[in-house]
Amino acid sequence: MPVVIVKMLEGRTTDQKRQLAREITDVITRVTGAPEDQVDVVIEDHPRENWAKAGVLYADK
Amino acid sequence: MPVVIVKMLEGRTTDQKRQLAREITDVITRVTGAPEDQVDVVIEDHPRENWAKAGVLYADK
Amino acid sequence: MPVVIVKMLEGRTTDQKRQLAREITDVITRVTGAPEDQVDVVIEDHPRENWAKAGVLYADK
Amino acid sequence: MPVVIVKMLEGRTTDQKRQLAREITDVITRVTGAPEDQVDVVIEDHPRENWAKAGVLYADK
Amino acid sequence: MPVVIVKMLEGRTTDQKRQLAREITDVITRVTGAPEDQVDVVIEDHPRENWAKAGVLYADK
Amino acid sequence: MPVVIVKMLEGRTTDQKRQLAREITDVITRVTGAPEDQVDVVIEDHPRENWAKAGVLYADK
Repeated sequence: MPVVIVKMLEGRTTDQKRQLAREITDVITRVTGAPEDQVDVVIEDHPRENWAKAGVLYADK
Repeated sequence: MPVVIVKMLEGRTTDQKRQLAREITDVITRVTGAPEDQVDVVIEDHPRENWAKAGVLYADK
Repeated sequence: MPVVIVKMLEGRTTDQKRQLAREITDVITRVTGAPEDQVDVVIEDHPRENWAKAGVLYADK
Repeated sequence: MPVVIVKMLEGRTTDQKRQLAREITDVITRVTGAPEDQVDVVIEDHPRENWAKAGVLYADK
Repeated sequence: MPVVIVKMLEGRTTDQKRQLAREITDVITRVTGAPEDQVDVVIEDHPRENWAKAGVLYADK
Repeated sequence: MPVVIVKMLEGRTTDQKRQLAREITDVITRVTGAPEDQVDVVIEDHPRENWAKAGVLYADK
């Protein structure tokens, strides 16, 4: 039942995503006691022209 | 005003999306009484390498 | 694996939520073929002072 | 059709929310040309014990 | 700390996104007093076949 | 810049939230190289009557 949504800039490798999913799931199950097969982790890749920090797109930094 | 976000793995056809949007909207209006033209349904397709269940990416299953 | 997030104004009864969850899950499984026990439906209640349409809070309408 | 979700710490006044909704809607319509009555702004208040920056809950800062 | 998510149909230019990010950030900092470098704006582009209003996909309108 | 949203049933203690935030932030920085002070973790508590699995509200299980 826990659903974890990770929003970040695009460009991570499949291996980084694999590791994020594995380790975040482990944290969730260890801390909350939720059964592992109930944990969804969704990674959302966002283009640099679609994310701004301090009012400036990452594409412009 | 109700906004429904459907997060799922990519790969559904346009026709499946059309049907999801139509039928979910019907459920919302019938159950809540919200006017149909106030209902937004947004379908979010996620690649198999971006979604994990039980700590394992769907791309690896 | 499909996760459905329903964002709406607060004030629905438990029975309306029960019906929304039941019927939206049925639509998802019928249209996409996803197994029922993989479908999460999360209903998010928002106060009228936290939602605006056309620039005006529902609390002010 | 644009839906804007503003996630922030709880504690803003109704008047601040009113102003956020009004001005964000104006930005959206002016920049994108979307009709005003198609713009939803949803403000999500999060308790300080539910939001962390740099690994530390705001409740602990 | 405020995170603003703008969900809209794809098709906006980089310049429109730049302007949205700049002006929404200015509204947030002016109204809430949040420091500019704490404001994230994420623009999510959705294909017309993934968004429905009144039960009809924009791709079908 | 990574923003992590953890959606789960309400009822976790502040200490569990503190631990989730700390450890998820550590995973993100270690795997992606993002600077710690750029990581937001937002925990969203959902009432049992607002979350359904397999079409049944947790409040009814």
